[in-house]
Amino acid sequence: MTATLPATARVISQWLDQFETALKEGDIEQAAQLFGDESYWRDLIAFSWNIVTVEGRDGVRDLLASTLDRVRPHGFEVAEDLGEPAEAGGVAESWIRFETAIGRCVGHLRLRDGKGWTLLTTMYELIGHEEQQGDRRPRGAEHGANPNRQTWLERRTHEAEELGHTTQPYTVIIGGGQGGIALGARLRQLGVPTIIVDRNPRPGDAWRNRYKSLCLHDPVWYDHLPYIDFPKNWPVFAPKDKIGDWLEMYARVMELNYWGSTECRSAKYDETKGEWIVVVERDGAEITLRPQQLVLATGMSGKANIPTFEGMDVFTGDQHHSSQHPGPDAYRGKRAVVIGANNSAHDICAALWEGGADVTMVQRSSTHIVKSDSLMTIALGGLYSEEAVAAGMTTQKADLTFASLPYRIMHEFQIPVYDEIRKKDADFYARLGAAGFLLDYGDDDSGLFMKYLRRGSGYYIDVGASELVAGGDIKLESGVDVVRLTETGVVLTNGKELPADLVVYATGYGSMNGWAADLISQEVADKVGKVWGLGSNTTKDPGPWEGEQRNMWKPTQQQALWFHGGNLHQSRHYSLYLALQLKARMEGIPTPVYGLQESHHLR
Amino acid sequence: MTATLPATARVISQWLDQFETALKEGDIEQAAQLFGDESYWRDLIAFSWNIVTVEGRDGVRDLLASTLDRVRPHGFEVAEDLGEPAEAGGVAESWIRFETAIGRCVGHLRLRDGKGWTLLTTMYELIGHEEQQGDRRPRGAEHGANPNRQTWLERRTHEAEELGHTTQPYTVIIGGGQGGIALGARLRQLGVPTIIVDRNPRPGDAWRNRYKSLCLHDPVWYDHLPYIDFPKNWPVFAPKDKIGDWLEMYARVMELNYWGSTECRSAKYDETKGEWIVVVERDGAEITLRPQQLVLATGMSGKANIPTFEGMDVFTGDQHHSSQHPGPDAYRGKRAVVIGANNSAHDICAALWEGGADVTMVQRSSTHIVKSDSLMTIALGGLYSEEAVAAGMTTQKADLTFASLPYRIMHEFQIPVYDEIRKKDADFYARLGAAGFLLDYGDDDSGLFMKYLRRGSGYYIDVGASELVAGGDIKLESGVDVVRLTETGVVLTNGKELPADLVVYATGYGSMNGWAADLISQEVADKVGKVWGLGSNTTKDPGPWEGEQRNMWKPTQQQALWFHGGNLHQSRHYSLYLALQLKARMEGIPTPVYGLQESHHLR
Repeated sequence: MTATLPATARVISQWLDQFETALKEGDIEQAAQLFGDESYWRDLIAFSWNIVTVEGRDGVRDLLASTLDRVRPHGFEVAEDLGEPAEAGGVAESWIRFETAIGRCVGHLRLRDGKGWTLLTTMYELIGHEEQQGDRRPRGAEHGANPNRQTWLERRTHEAEELGHTTQPYTVIIGGGQGGIALGARLRQLGVPTIIVDRNPRPGDAWRNRYKSLCLHDPVWYDHLPYIDFPKNWPVFAPKDKIGDWLEMYARVMELNYWGSTECRSAKYDETKGEWIVVVERDGAEITLRPQQLVLATGMSGKANIPTFEGMDVFTGDQHHSSQHPGPDAYRGKRAVVIGANNSAHDICAALWEGGADVTMVQRSSTHIVKSDSLMTIALGGLYSEEAVAAGMTTQKADLTFASLPYRIMHEFQIPVYDEIRKKDADFYARLGAAGFLLDYGDDDSGLFMKYLRRGSGYYIDVGASELVAGGDIKLESGVDVVRLTETGVVLTNGKELPADLVVYATGYGSMNGWAADLISQEVADKVGKVWGLGSNTTKDPGPWEGEQRNMWKPTQQQALWFHGGNLHQSRHYSLYLALQLKARMEGIPTPVYGLQESHHLR
Repeated sequence: MTATLPATARVISQWLDQFETALKEGDIEQAAQLFGDESYWRDLIAFSWNIVTVEGRDGVRDLLASTLDRVRPHGFEVAEDLGEPAEAGGVAESWIRFETAIGRCVGHLRLRDGKGWTLLTTMYELIGHEEQQGDRRPRGAEHGANPNRQTWLERRTHEAEELGHTTQPYTVIIGGGQGGIALGARLRQLGVPTIIVDRNPRPGDAWRNRYKSLCLHDPVWYDHLPYIDFPKNWPVFAPKDKIGDWLEMYARVMELNYWGSTECRSAKYDETKGEWIVVVERDGAEITLRPQQLVLATGMSGKANIPTFEGMDVFTGDQHHSSQHPGPDAYRGKRAVVIGANNSAHDICAALWEGGADVTMVQRSSTHIVKSDSLMTIALGGLYSEEAVAAGMTTQKADLTFASLPYRIMHEFQIPVYDEIRKKDADFYARLGAAGFLLDYGDDDSGLFMKYLRRGSGYYIDVGASELVAGGDIKLESGVDVVRLTETGVVLTNGKELPADLVVYATGYGSMNGWAADLISQEVADKVGKVWGLGSNTTKDPGPWEGEQRNMWKPTQQQALWFHGGNLHQSRHYSLYLALQLKARMEGIPTPVYGLQESHHLR
């Protein structure tokens, strides 16, 4: 800190100096006094070995009282390499950097009236266990002469043959979608022996097997995997098969031990040995794996919610959950009824209509609709866009910026965004409403991303289907439910019977602990409780307030059981913290967990 | 240009202003007078639709007289986004940017005493035919409703089924190594329908099939392909199978039409139709392709030089060219004789020694040896290293910096580098010499890179074998030649007979027009003449001076026939200019060639 620093940088540096002094002296009260009445400290494993947000000075006191002795944080400074401190609207903010006794950390600080308002602290690297990249990258060729030389291919082949048979992985990841793959790549870089198990033959098949018109609804800048960015020619919204190819190639060049065509049959934690007994069937042969850590990366959209309607057994047409829908090819000239009005329902209805089917959407409750273009420019553009990249925004900075906004107040930042979108697209929403479509914008009008974080459902990012609904091309029955199916159709609560050759249940997905019930036991699933959601006490996200997403990327009530997933952004960003938690445990680094969540809901 | 510019930027800007004024006024003499007595203008297709260097004011006059009316260059300015102008040792230098009537261009200028000393001009983009990347990237998803929608996979599958059968590619590339793949990727981005033909089943097999200890001798920063950089965790010297996997992945995600397991049987140019008749055998079926352009990317190390020694027919052991060598596994305890003392010879000798064979290297003429570490730190480090990247050096800037040094004077920059290396590694060279190894540093002591550019042979980048030679572990017979083979060994000109179970001919590769002879005709091969080399009048690079590498990446004496290749750096950088030459021809943009090279040597 020097007198020549601009004013904002000086204010930030002074705060950091005072914070560091208080922490060094163990003066927790002094540290707490640096925060404002309203304040949030979000920590991603740097202090807490958890993903946790504490609130107010009491929260600061509590976090520090439990962790300060062990963490010994020091070297706080403005991280100028990430950008200059800035001030706007009475808030001074800056990237920061510091170290703990065991890790290198980066974070973000916002001051209001000179007091801490939001603090983000994240560990990105364990000292002494750095990833082999950049100036630490491996040499590849081993120079000199060595009669016992093994080539890269020999080592790789040997490892693949031994792992899971004569040697045991430290971690098994169930589910090889983008989540499992991103985590697997990080664990490979950290030297954590890992097997990824997936029922499909090839990485990417989970995408390839979906309905054929599927494209990512999130834009490319939001979707990068760790280590290898999508190239500059990659489409904004990647088609599913192209993503499939990318994941397959990524898994190969990142040298993941990916067991395709492998079903997990059961998993059981052996408390005595401190290891899991995971039974899988690989290409028809049963293999028992004994990893010390088990990660379920089965997809927050993994376990289908299939409703039970009277008459499903007598219906003579095709019926399936949206996750099983093969696309429209077989349904030209047929009558299709799609139950549901969220993303998959819209995509499937539009593809069926394009394929020449007669389509009716059955909307049982209101849906939040945002046009993709509006979402891109108004909601995401500042962090994830070509313009943001041109302005110097990196994926790391965008992810950390997003992470720096505490969930408790995130809706306050989101509400104005959706107010603007509603104004911009007023005609569009009016036409949809006139067609009878039931619209909402979230319980508190905070829009799509909060719905995603709270319940992971209840919205459609419009890429064209809404105009078909508004125009009557896709027929709509809204505010109704299904009474029963008949041999030839669907009877609704409004008394109508829709004749149907096909019924698609676009009825969403259940909590991921449903997978734990299937694979491990109902007892473990109940102990862990509901996965996902913030405890916001809004629809499908019951309280109490959790402050973070339940059970995701952090310790759960079941020892050595982890949940990983989310969209490509979350898979990328949070896989870092999950990977470091696993690495630390493998290395025997003490990882006392601050604030281990309780379970308040079974599913 | 403003008065507040620093002095060097002002000098550069003044020169550019004067140059632009002269060009706009068509005043060639005025433009020529801006160059010094000793001066070089290297043009990569921006003015010449050729790869050409002109020398002195006469060269400037000649180039402009032929091209100025058509090119209409304008908008010359310092390209500050690439870096600040700089001055050192009386030379002011700067990145520059300008446009022509048809293209966007970037370049580099060095002034000595205010006069042009070196000028590099390169076109990187045809106006109106920009690549679909960055803010021009494709959308991927087609929003809206479209009953005739084709998915990405359907389009891709359809294209692959039609191309080469019911539709014809504009370009066929023979050879799917890194050269063909890099060029194919650029052509795909430019919308030039292309088929890459390779005899091996999978992309990367040309690497996989080599001897098993092979690693790249060039470091990762030098080796990036276009569009997708190797990730930060990629090894410095990538093992061959890992490069193979990367190339396979790259070809897939870049959506190349790669015909593996396909042999080119013959090619003939139909002058009347202006197209090639290329007969290939794909998976056993004969297919005739009719592209308008044919690129041989068969590798400058593609066509093996197999010597003819008396007695090769009676020798009862194994004998093969280095390109066919399978590695040491079958030769434990056997006696191996390796004829040659360049890169492959050393690699193979070391691997055989490591594999427990008794190995003798037969060195017929002197070799240039550089230790890999010295090459990395002293010769390449400024442009291609982790430090260079950290200092802001990009691949584009490194490539253009390299390209900005005219070949005529490049050795002057290289000689001091190798002087330094000789001093640093004096002990090492002394030990090698004491073992009888015949050393050289190039005819004019300009070292490895000049040898590579002039003759593509005559060196070994030491990664360990030299210590085995110096220590006698690899036995050495130097300054000798082979008289004949017997049933059981090799007789040398020094009278010795070396008993041998294996003879490896590490005798290098012929000029690429040998491939043209095989595939097209001896007549076309002779018309085109020798490929590679600068005409430096040094060993294996006969004069007259060419100024550029013969026949590489530019028009040849055979219409519509092109040669592409080189190391990963060259494949990456020069594929851009070759791709633009092909694209312009496909679009019917006039491409009059300035300074089409004559052929002075048959091979």
